[in-house]
Amino acid sequence: MKIPFVKMHGLGNNYVFVDTFDHPLEERQLPEIARNVADVHTGIGSDGLILITPSDKAPVGMRIFNNDGSEGKNCGNGLRCVAKYAYEKGIVSIEQFQIEAKSGVVDATVRLEDGKVDQVTIDMGTPWLKRSEIPMVGAEVDQVVGEAFDVSHHPLEVTALSMGNPHAIFFVDDIAQAPLKTLGPVITNDPRFPDGVNVEFVEVVSPTELHFRVWERGSGITQACGTGACAAGVASVLNGYAKKDSDIVVHLSGGDLIIKWDLHDRVWMTGPAEVIAEGVYHFERNV
Amino acid sequence: MKIPFVKMHGLGNNYVFVDTFDHPLEERQLPEIARNVADVHTGIGSDGLILITPSDKAPVGMRIFNNDGSEGKNCGNGLRCVAKYAYEKGIVSIEQFQIEAKSGVVDATVRLEDGKVDQVTIDMGTPWLKRSEIPMVGAEVDQVVGEAFDVSHHPLEVTALSMGNPHAIFFVDDIAQAPLKTLGPVITNDPRFPDGVNVEFVEVVSPTELHFRVWERGSGITQACGTGACAAGVASVLNGYAKKDSDIVVHLSGGDLIIKWDLHDRVWMTGPAEVIAEGVYHFERNV
Repeated sequence: MKIPFVKMHGLGNNYVFVDTFDHPLEERQLPEIARNVADVHTGIGSDGLILITPSDKAPVGMRIFNNDGSEGKNCGNGLRCVAKYAYEKGIVSIEQFQIEAKSGVVDATVRLEDGKVDQVTIDMGTPWLKRSEIPMVGAEVDQVVGEAFDVSHHPLEVTALSMGNPHAIFFVDDIAQAPLKTLGPVITNDPRFPDGVNVEFVEVVSPTELHFRVWERGSGITQACGTGACAAGVASVLNGYAKKDSDIVVHLSGGDLIIKWDLHDRVWMTGPAEVIAEGVYHFERNV
Repeated sequence: MKIPFVKMHGLGNNYVFVDTFDHPLEERQLPEIARNVADVHTGIGSDGLILITPSDKAPVGMRIFNNDGSEGKNCGNGLRCVAKYAYEKGIVSIEQFQIEAKSGVVDATVRLEDGKVDQVTIDMGTPWLKRSEIPMVGAEVDQVVGEAFDVSHHPLEVTALSMGNPHAIFFVDDIAQAPLKTLGPVITNDPRFPDGVNVEFVEVVSPTELHFRVWERGSGITQACGTGACAAGVASVLNGYAKKDSDIVVHLSGGDLIIKWDLHDRVWMTGPAEVIAEGVYHFERNV
């Protein structure tokens, strides 16, 4: 079977996208297609497969499959790519529209340059600040902001919150000196976070600029984590380093995102989406 | 710039191929294209870039660029893919033809199934058996066949030869127990091999069947190494486990190769070549 595809990435977080408006795929084959296409040795190579689908609740939907074949709920970098594709291929004809993901319907806005989508803003939802919502065990204080947190005899201070997934943010003076490799794998499995946690080190350059490095739960060091960048922006506001309703540029290893926590308590993420290649994937050779 | 490409693999050794008959590329851009296209995060993802080129010495030529942008000399798995492409696209119209690689002109034969190239046989040249040709330092014995070779207090026996690159073969009773992870990285840097060495463990199942695992010089454990499989076949003959001029099936992690060391001292490698995807790569986004 030959499957038309587009490979796109947002800050290096890369997926093979299949437009199921044009080319429906059989449900039972999806996990195998995702595993095969994601394998760089015998497939195209990617973080997974994203289907761009018809939806009852929005003009376009997305389903994401990880490279192990399991179905994921959401992915900020993937959503930006879906928005770019939907606009450029004419699935939508206005610059503000909605996308249905498994986690719910989100708002997307595309910004054009020379007729192509250059940047995309995605509504990343409301942060969950309560300790029980993260979840994190500990003192009876309701929010976790600059709380003492010792790890392997390092006296750290943590700010923790959930963007649908748990984040532990540690502010540092110099991002280049952040102990990501040594403490990332320790903190992500710390029993104070019963569901595990994404570990982020953040250097505040100014109230509108952060440096950011992440150890993703289950993945290790990655070039970009959209929800992590959002959590870093929110944590900066909670600690008084930045203000609500202002654009905060977050420098990740893979590039920049702009984060805004607005006065309606919603977090907006703006960043690039880029087409790498388009063509036809030969799936028949695997079956 | 949009570059038409085909991604193909031979036993998991995968490259992005560009047909420069149709689409010439600028020489000065080749290293950057190779680096970018090979990066799975922001490119397609591959072991490198192979150009399928016009040649003065053969109906088709190939140039291989590693994923660091450097130009390589040869690659057995890549040659099989080039042969498949050249035949299926009509660059050649007969089943036996020559391919010019940087290391020289080699003979290729394609075997068809349903009009498509299923298996390809490549002339891998003559093995170099002299100690000085490998190169390996040691006793005045000219060939290295079953020679005592202690590593980290393990009393091993090595058979060493060159297929254009150096190989150290160790026969084991059970491939599943071969100390590839522990001794591979030690032996590859052993000072007795001044240029380093590819480390191969081989289990002889029968005179026509071997199991094979490789630690590639500079790469570590890989799924397939064409010259390593050839070296394993030659070493099996040198040790009396197999015969000259007979087909030896070598089971690698990525699949099977058939090796024959013929009576004219040439080594022939037969194996699969598969198309993964074809399309257009967007290079302009990187510049």
